[in-house]
Amino acid sequence: MPSIDLNCDMGESFGAYTIGRDEEILDLITSANIACGFHAGDPTVMRKTVRMAAEKGVGIGAHPGLPDLMGFGRRNMQISPQEAYDMTVYQIGALAAFAKAEGSTVRHVKPHGALYNMAAKDTGLAEAIAEAVYDVSPDLILFGLAGSELVKAGEKAGLKTASEVFADRTYQQDGALTPRREPNALIKDRETAAKQVIRMIKEGMVTSVQGEDVSVRADTICIHGDGRQALHFAAFIRQSLEQEGIEIEKISHLS
Amino acid sequence: MPSIDLNCDMGESFGAYTIGRDEEILDLITSANIACGFHAGDPTVMRKTVRMAAEKGVGIGAHPGLPDLMGFGRRNMQISPQEAYDMTVYQIGALAAFAKAEGSTVRHVKPHGALYNMAAKDTGLAEAIAEAVYDVSPDLILFGLAGSELVKAGEKAGLKTASEVFADRTYQQDGALTPRREPNALIKDRETAAKQVIRMIKEGMVTSVQGEDVSVRADTICIHGDGRQALHFAAFIRQSLEQEGIEIEKISHLS
Amino acid sequence: MPSIDLNCDMGESFGAYTIGRDEEILDLITSANIACGFHAGDPTVMRKTVRMAAEKGVGIGAHPGLPDLMGFGRRNMQISPQEAYDMTVYQIGALAAFAKAEGSTVRHVKPHGALYNMAAKDTGLAEAIAEAVYDVSPDLILFGLAGSELVKAGEKAGLKTASEVFADRTYQQDGALTPRREPNALIKDRETAAKQVIRMIKEGMVTSVQGEDVSVRADTICIHGDGRQALHFAAFIRQSLEQEGIEIEKISHLS
Amino acid sequence: MPSIDLNCDMGESFGAYTIGRDEEILDLITSANIACGFHAGDPTVMRKTVRMAAEKGVGIGAHPGLPDLMGFGRRNMQISPQEAYDMTVYQIGALAAFAKAEGSTVRHVKPHGALYNMAAKDTGLAEAIAEAVYDVSPDLILFGLAGSELVKAGEKAGLKTASEVFADRTYQQDGALTPRREPNALIKDRETAAKQVIRMIKEGMVTSVQGEDVSVRADTICIHGDGRQALHFAAFIRQSLEQEGIEIEKISHLS
Repeated sequence: MPSIDLNCDMGESFGAYTIGRDEEILDLITSANIACGFHAGDPTVMRKTVRMAAEKGVGIGAHPGLPDLMGFGRRNMQISPQEAYDMTVYQIGALAAFAKAEGSTVRHVKPHGALYNMAAKDTGLAEAIAEAVYDVSPDLILFGLAGSELVKAGEKAGLKTASEVFADRTYQQDGALTPRREPNALIKDRETAAKQVIRMIKEGMVTSVQGEDVSVRADTICIHGDGRQALHFAAFIRQSLEQEGIEIEKISHLS
Repeated sequence: MPSIDLNCDMGESFGAYTIGRDEEILDLITSANIACGFHAGDPTVMRKTVRMAAEKGVGIGAHPGLPDLMGFGRRNMQISPQEAYDMTVYQIGALAAFAKAEGSTVRHVKPHGALYNMAAKDTGLAEAIAEAVYDVSPDLILFGLAGSELVKAGEKAGLKTASEVFADRTYQQDGALTPRREPNALIKDRETAAKQVIRMIKEGMVTSVQGEDVSVRADTICIHGDGRQALHFAAFIRQSLEQEGIEIEKISHLS
Repeated sequence: MPSIDLNCDMGESFGAYTIGRDEEILDLITSANIACGFHAGDPTVMRKTVRMAAEKGVGIGAHPGLPDLMGFGRRNMQISPQEAYDMTVYQIGALAAFAKAEGSTVRHVKPHGALYNMAAKDTGLAEAIAEAVYDVSPDLILFGLAGSELVKAGEKAGLKTASEVFADRTYQQDGALTPRREPNALIKDRETAAKQVIRMIKEGMVTSVQGEDVSVRADTICIHGDGRQALHFAAFIRQSLEQEGIEIEKISHLS
Repeated sequence: MPSIDLNCDMGESFGAYTIGRDEEILDLITSANIACGFHAGDPTVMRKTVRMAAEKGVGIGAHPGLPDLMGFGRRNMQISPQEAYDMTVYQIGALAAFAKAEGSTVRHVKPHGALYNMAAKDTGLAEAIAEAVYDVSPDLILFGLAGSELVKAGEKAGLKTASEVFADRTYQQDGALTPRREPNALIKDRETAAKQVIRMIKEGMVTSVQGEDVSVRADTICIHGDGRQALHFAAFIRQSLEQEGIEIEKISHLS
């Protein structure tokens, strides 16, 4: 039976500021990417989010980002591979301590925003991040965009990797996501989105915006939890997968 | 044979800013308290400092501070015990990941500056910090001012503790340090300073500024490394201790 | 005819984080206290908030806070008067530039949260803040808790001051606010709140929780805008004042 | 008689961290570019630096940078023109308030590090920065790399501009600086450096690394003050200029 992991970014609140409906989305997903205090999140938010994820049996993941709270980690920064390595080690460690204190463990690492995007294309950054993950723990699973340099770097480093696909984004002929600035970048219709991920899971194929089939590996689907609509969309995707007989299963169970 | 640990704060550089002569002071001490990015330090500085300490066989310690880089963690902040717990877990974890990546381990934790001072007197903060340390790892040694609430909280939490004494500070009748704002707070003469610590180690006694003896437990001496003079002072103290037949020994080897 | 100013904290969003219903509350108030990037707010939020306030004819005020975004400027920090001076000058200046760029001017300054509370009692901090305001511009109006050290320091420095009162807080016999931790600190019934401010405006009196009358000067009322309920409460207070024939008027028009 | 302005970045200390020999370099230059708290500097450092510059009659300039203290503002960040505008307004305003409080005024603005470099090439960023400067005050002089988009944008916005040249950097055939990563990017010999700037001032020409003459406008020379050697280099350049009969004059006096 085919299976898939569902992951979502969370723990992105900060001090008096709240973002995301973490508690609700945790009921729908199997892997939580928890912000580590650089692009979002603070120590108190991290503790609470780790606890919630642990209680609900959701896999705990570190979600390291660029040191840019004002930009929510979404602005590219010209960092060196060494800086990428250092900030990844730091953030995984911080989250791991909360996991430890809550009697749990970090299972996976997914870079956030601009760090994720830069590491998808920049081999040097990708390898630095993969090495950082490996050096903190070779048991961690590295999440990256399907077909990206990050996934390749993870494999090269000897890590288990999870290839991430998107239900609500269109794909280019070369397997890349259509950039957000393009008019047809987003899939707003949830049925189309569900069909796209079901095909990616069952056939390993996606239809590009150019109209041709592209092969893509789908280990985990990126889910959003930042609003009521996002939650409904996520619930619909999950339900559609289950109706197709696809098992929703935590990635860390996959060997 | 009596023995003592020598500890020093370090890894307090940040980005383009350099503070401290870490490499030199590491040759004189047995325990390094490494800043964790809140009051000082950044991921790159942490990695380098951990590596240097590991190479020189110096015990690696987390030196968590208040989130106040501008004030170097020296300004009291009215944080709750829960916030103290959370920021302690976070910072130990971040450092632990670098220790792991360098093939080493964090041995001890010493709070920095205002956090150290507040935890010396405030039972709630002290207990929160001790619990944080314990929850990250019960094997960690908690460093605190001799006779402080922090040392008591560490013992209560089931941690090994190290009572810290100062060579260059005078003591009050109740065992507290003379506040820095007092004219006689500092001992500038290095021979007087050496005699004070030797007596604390050998007799467990210190003469207060009021002229009477106070009992004090000395497991580790606080050394400073922020300048040429501080280095000479530290070297003199170390030499004096050795001449007295006191073994300079990493605290984590004790008991 | 009696008149009163209504002020509200705003511009407290930051990057991807949103707090407050600034646009709606601006229709109810006459003075906007705009966060300046230390406890909340960022350059983009400041520009937008200044523009909105200017468009609606609401008085633009700087709302300087402690450098503690994680604590939203609500945690006391042991800063020196010189540091208070410096951070006040800095923050007023930053906001003043946006006001200038939008063709407007800063009219008043109200410290935020812990800085406001500390300056209400600590003469040194109060005088430092008042001098900072004066040194940036002697035409600025300093907002402070009625009867506080801050208002006294403002008068001493030669500034116009505005004594702030609260509709939703109870008062002690000495004119101080009942601390928030006390069970009877808050007035939740809006009619009671309206009556309290109407009496403060018309008679200069408030009934303390101890049951006796205390004289209080009311130049401006603190309004909250951080949710739908707060907006309804604010609208009710404003309506009640108007029904009593009290003119709602920007403080900078006074005297 | 030919004249030239000498400018230097300063006020880059932060909290307990010290960078630069500001007091000494102020005796050699005519324009001080003072960090404004984003890439370096804090309110206390800004006040002290403004006061020193004012006392020595050196022109006070705002030196806005990217919000990246850890990277000292040297890492490119993918910010939008609107963000560049907002952070420039903010930082000029903050510095202007200190100038005001010290009885002085901000005369010029020079972006720092990565912001300077990005604005040299990116028209959108350059125009946003120029507009920000103009909107805060049309009297400000905008400093930018000679021949850069920033200087062009300043002229387009109606600002006075100062074209900056470097004594210690080599030039490319197109007038651009040789990138620092190139082996021949720096001029370490002070006599060569002095000759280069003298020719730029007197003839408006520089010999490129390719060996041909390039025309370049020289209104101000960038001087460094971050060490003893830099100070000696700066003193030598100044002396050489004076020996050539070139007047060292504050840019704001020009035209």
